[in-house]
Amino acid sequence: MHRVKVRVVEDALDANNTIARANRDDFDRHDVTVVNLMSAPGAGKTTLLERVLGGLSVRAGVLEGDVQGSYDADRLASLHVPVVQLNTGAGFGGECHLDANMVRSALPSLALDDLDLLVIENVGNLVCPAEFRVGEDARAMVCSVTEGEDKPLKYPLMFRACELVVINKIDLLEHLDFDLDKLIANIAVANPDAEVTLVSARTGEGVGAFRDWLAGVAVAV
Amino acid sequence: MHRVKVRVVEDALDANNTIARANRDDFDRHDVTVVNLMSAPGAGKTTLLERVLGGLSVRAGVLEGDVQGSYDADRLASLHVPVVQLNTGAGFGGECHLDANMVRSALPSLALDDLDLLVIENVGNLVCPAEFRVGEDARAMVCSVTEGEDKPLKYPLMFRACELVVINKIDLLEHLDFDLDKLIANIAVANPDAEVTLVSARTGEGVGAFRDWLAGVAVAV
Repeated sequence: MHRVKVRVVEDALDANNTIARANRDDFDRHDVTVVNLMSAPGAGKTTLLERVLGGLSVRAGVLEGDVQGSYDADRLASLHVPVVQLNTGAGFGGECHLDANMVRSALPSLALDDLDLLVIENVGNLVCPAEFRVGEDARAMVCSVTEGEDKPLKYPLMFRACELVVINKIDLLEHLDFDLDKLIANIAVANPDAEVTLVSARTGEGVGAFRDWLAGVAVAV
Repeated sequence: MHRVKVRVVEDALDANNTIARANRDDFDRHDVTVVNLMSAPGAGKTTLLERVLGGLSVRAGVLEGDVQGSYDADRLASLHVPVVQLNTGAGFGGECHLDANMVRSALPSLALDDLDLLVIENVGNLVCPAEFRVGEDARAMVCSVTEGEDKPLKYPLMFRACELVVINKIDLLEHLDFDLDKLIANIAVANPDAEVTLVSARTGEGVGAFRDWLAGVAVAV
């Protein structure tokens, strides 16, 4: 029974990787760099994007992943950022993550020729989004200080999957019983190669470094 | 393709419900009331349990669900609460939720005769845990004010699945741009019947009401 289940999961991930490569070919053909942005629910991905997308030196768009609704897409669209909403609840069984096939279904709605950078804002979840490549060039995650220091130990695959960990909500540090050094040490245990940057998406502190990282990824690829 | 996928999901949920009923029969036979406690990662489930389990008038134990590790179980065990750890990463493919079969696999490790109440602390995730009944009598979720007011609109199934929504981290309200009335109104949109209670697991404010709710569920069933 267990072996059958592992085989089903492996087959699904294998099919996903095939479609991810097809997405990647399409992105390459249009010279679009793609960043897969992940986090727990409410860690601040959208607020962070609101802060940085306007001031970017490259042309950026967003593919917004949610189980249902378009709350985050509406927020970004009001800033005149090109946004396409992808709901996992409509036709995809309410999945807790984006996969390559869902992203592929959104490609016809994306004006790739008008973009240098596409940020895919994944469904808020620290488990499954890390397992499904979608054709991205780089992966980043947002981890907020209100979530506690132990998250890299409890969800190591997510931290291991990302090149960059953005530690958000640092404006709240003085009001928490929170050991920032311990979080950074735990991130290093899960992923010694991860780049770490500190921000407050609410006050704007440190967001320039994330904006520079996004622009750097777009230029470097 | 889509119809096949829906059928596979329906079959899996159907099998899950069958096993959940078997779990429920076992819990009933031992007179144990079971609460399935869910939330996003870092919302404060374990800190809340640390606050309330000691002062309970009924004999309580915890089944601790995590992808890997036993960090939360160790915290609770140090308070002399009977705890059994269930890892979804070992033998269950790293699932992002507990299902009835996983809970069933843990039953032999639980001294049900010594318990009146079993709290199942689910994997931190606002999507899939709501889809899988595990044989529980009641479901509660923790939603922290640092996650934003929009979570009931983005993850309505989770809020709909729960009898009680515990709004945590209210000690941080004065430091946030956060509209508590809006969150409560959004919870009512997702689930008009949900009971809502405000707590700070950190300071202890309001935790008595959650302790009373747990004791009440255990006595009522």
